[in-house]
Amino acid sequence: MASADTTHSFDHKHLLSIEDLTSLDLEHILNLAERYANATRAGRRPMPIMAGKTVINLFFENSTRTMSSFEIAARRLGADVVSMPVAQSSIKKGETLIDTAMTLNAMKPDAIVIRHSTSGGVKLLSRKVECAVINAGDGMHQHPTQGLLDTLTIRRHKGKIEGLNVTICGDIAHSRVARSTTQALSRLGANVTLCAPKTLLPSDAAAWGAAETTTDFDRAVKDRDIIMMLRLQYERMDGTQLPSRLEYYHFFCLTASRLSKAKPDALVMHPGPKNRGIEIESAIADGPQSVITEQVEMGVAVREAVLDLLTREAST
Amino acid sequence: MASADTTHSFDHKHLLSIEDLTSLDLEHILNLAERYANATRAGRRPMPIMAGKTVINLFFENSTRTMSSFEIAARRLGADVVSMPVAQSSIKKGETLIDTAMTLNAMKPDAIVIRHSTSGGVKLLSRKVECAVINAGDGMHQHPTQGLLDTLTIRRHKGKIEGLNVTICGDIAHSRVARSTTQALSRLGANVTLCAPKTLLPSDAAAWGAAETTTDFDRAVKDRDIIMMLRLQYERMDGTQLPSRLEYYHFFCLTASRLSKAKPDALVMHPGPKNRGIEIESAIADGPQSVITEQVEMGVAVREAVLDLLTREAST
Amino acid sequence: MASADTTHSFDHKHLLSIEDLTSLDLEHILNLAERYANATRAGRRPMPIMAGKTVINLFFENSTRTMSSFEIAARRLGADVVSMPVAQSSIKKGETLIDTAMTLNAMKPDAIVIRHSTSGGVKLLSRKVECAVINAGDGMHQHPTQGLLDTLTIRRHKGKIEGLNVTICGDIAHSRVARSTTQALSRLGANVTLCAPKTLLPSDAAAWGAAETTTDFDRAVKDRDIIMMLRLQYERMDGTQLPSRLEYYHFFCLTASRLSKAKPDALVMHPGPKNRGIEIESAIADGPQSVITEQVEMGVAVREAVLDLLTREAST
Repeated sequence: MASADTTHSFDHKHLLSIEDLTSLDLEHILNLAERYANATRAGRRPMPIMAGKTVINLFFENSTRTMSSFEIAARRLGADVVSMPVAQSSIKKGETLIDTAMTLNAMKPDAIVIRHSTSGGVKLLSRKVECAVINAGDGMHQHPTQGLLDTLTIRRHKGKIEGLNVTICGDIAHSRVARSTTQALSRLGANVTLCAPKTLLPSDAAAWGAAETTTDFDRAVKDRDIIMMLRLQYERMDGTQLPSRLEYYHFFCLTASRLSKAKPDALVMHPGPKNRGIEIESAIADGPQSVITEQVEMGVAVREAVLDLLTREAST
Repeated sequence: MASADTTHSFDHKHLLSIEDLTSLDLEHILNLAERYANATRAGRRPMPIMAGKTVINLFFENSTRTMSSFEIAARRLGADVVSMPVAQSSIKKGETLIDTAMTLNAMKPDAIVIRHSTSGGVKLLSRKVECAVINAGDGMHQHPTQGLLDTLTIRRHKGKIEGLNVTICGDIAHSRVARSTTQALSRLGANVTLCAPKTLLPSDAAAWGAAETTTDFDRAVKDRDIIMMLRLQYERMDGTQLPSRLEYYHFFCLTASRLSKAKPDALVMHPGPKNRGIEIESAIADGPQSVITEQVEMGVAVREAVLDLLTREAST
Repeated sequence: MASADTTHSFDHKHLLSIEDLTSLDLEHILNLAERYANATRAGRRPMPIMAGKTVINLFFENSTRTMSSFEIAARRLGADVVSMPVAQSSIKKGETLIDTAMTLNAMKPDAIVIRHSTSGGVKLLSRKVECAVINAGDGMHQHPTQGLLDTLTIRRHKGKIEGLNVTICGDIAHSRVARSTTQALSRLGANVTLCAPKTLLPSDAAAWGAAETTTDFDRAVKDRDIIMMLRLQYERMDGTQLPSRLEYYHFFCLTASRLSKAKPDALVMHPGPKNRGIEIESAIADGPQSVITEQVEMGVAVREAVLDLLTREAST
């Protein structure tokens, strides 16, 4: 598939953070991803442009969903894929992240897709290897392909990003998704409101590009174009930050009644996996305004685009 | 490979249960599977008829054996395969089976092969997705490809199924294998006897198509064409249903002395993994009448046939 | 890729142990592996000589590193690969190693790569199957591809093996790496010294081909061409064989000061994963004399060569 925008040259070795990307870079990836999405919908298989290339999926945190998405994307392009859920492997033998990286690099892959629990761990690793590195989530820091797939899903429905009013609600402070998506959307001109209980709001929201933060979800859904709910991540909280699930539901769940205050054509989004009945009502998650499964679909397309762009030969 | 029987049109979207298949359907699958088996024996690789197609193996219960068999079958046909042993993945994050299904469906696979601990769970899932769904075992309910591979193994040796006398012995009540195999064999005209301790006999054996049930294994082996032993599934029993392994061995193990009462050319079968010295003597498992490893071989062939039939374009 | 040495015919069905290989066999594998290594360095993809062939990776012990290396090697040659980390699978259901082997064999693979915790387990298995079997590590016995990759790494730097003075230091007695590498190097004419605390020296070092054993590491590094450090395998020791990590470091760690006693162009090697600061100082592991990551690179090349040689059609 030819470059989506022949007037822009995408000049990055790795995809580590949305922060590294200009608005032109973002548009470039989204345009190419959209072509891949349309091809799949039309039942067309892309050219095997990665035939003979090797992608290593190195996941230090379990994620069936994201690892599968990358695996399917890479195979669609004809690549060899070696998926390594390493939660319980070499790490136990006392090897450092850097040693693991150097070991994999020595096997001469063309790209390493990595998820790691340490914020910044992926960037550290990228400096030690020769191949392209794609950040599939590092601690509470970044998850750039999620930011891209959210943005693509919105753009397909609204035709643009600029000027849209977006509310992201939930466990913002612990969320690499919230950071990456806020940065991508705001860089392309959206107004992003971050909503959470006070203890779950980030201290540096302005640096993410957010227009405002609030603890008042009822106000934050009003007249919005997009409502994106985040999963309540029990496992990352120490139990002192939230009074109870019931109280969380009461103030922060996306219910039918709350959604009715948003614009009539507002989109409902969620990166998954969902806690039904906690941060989102089942009927809303499955309702006509939900584009949750389309987010998953765009995830594969975005990963095809990113793998394509980062493993092209130097002639591009 | 062309359709095995051009006069019959196989018209199913999913393979969920042997109950859904007519005798013509069964013959159709078996004929195609036999061609695949013969091709592999002859060292011939089938045409890559699934090139560009994606198969997701979604196993909520560990099964190296069955997952590998599906993976090898799909790859032999040229498909991309993503195998996901999810025992310890998204499920832990509180996602429902249906959400998992809808997520995978959004990645646009051509088939999902699923094993789940809930009887009926696979059927539920099949209603939520657009692609073909193959049941690789759901709770104590069905394991249709096992029923097919057992039937194919027998047909290759005996030339037919009709009129054969088959005894299945072991933990019948907890066995999806016993149900699927009994249904397939009886639909094609075999007389199936189910034999087990009283507590392990099913209450609805007639509905499976079984001709009779008995607790007397010595009688049940007499003059039979086929003796199929099931694995004693300790992990599914609560300890009150069986007095002891020794007693089980005494009354229900297939020993050389018992086998001598069956027809001289009786086949010995077992779906594996075997408990040697509990439900079957080692010498019998490895003896000349055993077709246990051929069952495994036919398993790959049956899965090639099923994947082929369910992912063909609409023109078929 | 054509045979590396047309005057020698490599006539082995399996690769179980370095002991089974003549010096001509070793050279034959190394020559072919070197071609594969050079092709990868030059960015050339090898011919898909294993297209249509199936390799099963059966790992009863976790090893991200070795399993990935075999997987990448097999895929580079065009093979279908099914990787089975079975630590927690059928084994739990009470199946024997032999039953697992016969089951896999019935799926008609072209090669099985196996790692098992029992010394001799792989050889036992090889007698029960029809396809090629490659030992990827069996207990404390053999790890032949490691022996080959160590030898290849050395040969590339030194131009030969004969007459080189090699010291291997660490937990020798528990190390299949030490045994395989010592046998390969000594068969090709190197003088190998094995160095360890007394409790970790093997009783049969001469049978491995070692020239000598010693507990004096300071003496053992002197004027050597190669210093190979082994990982201190805590998990295989019962706690009585070593006084403390600190004491181990004091007497057996490869420090800059110790390395300065070896030849100026001595190579530093380690099979990984490393315990930095225990058996090897970080600065040495990453220093100019270290060829540790090149060992990993040669690992893929050696596995390509072995898979190629063992799955060639009979005409070879």
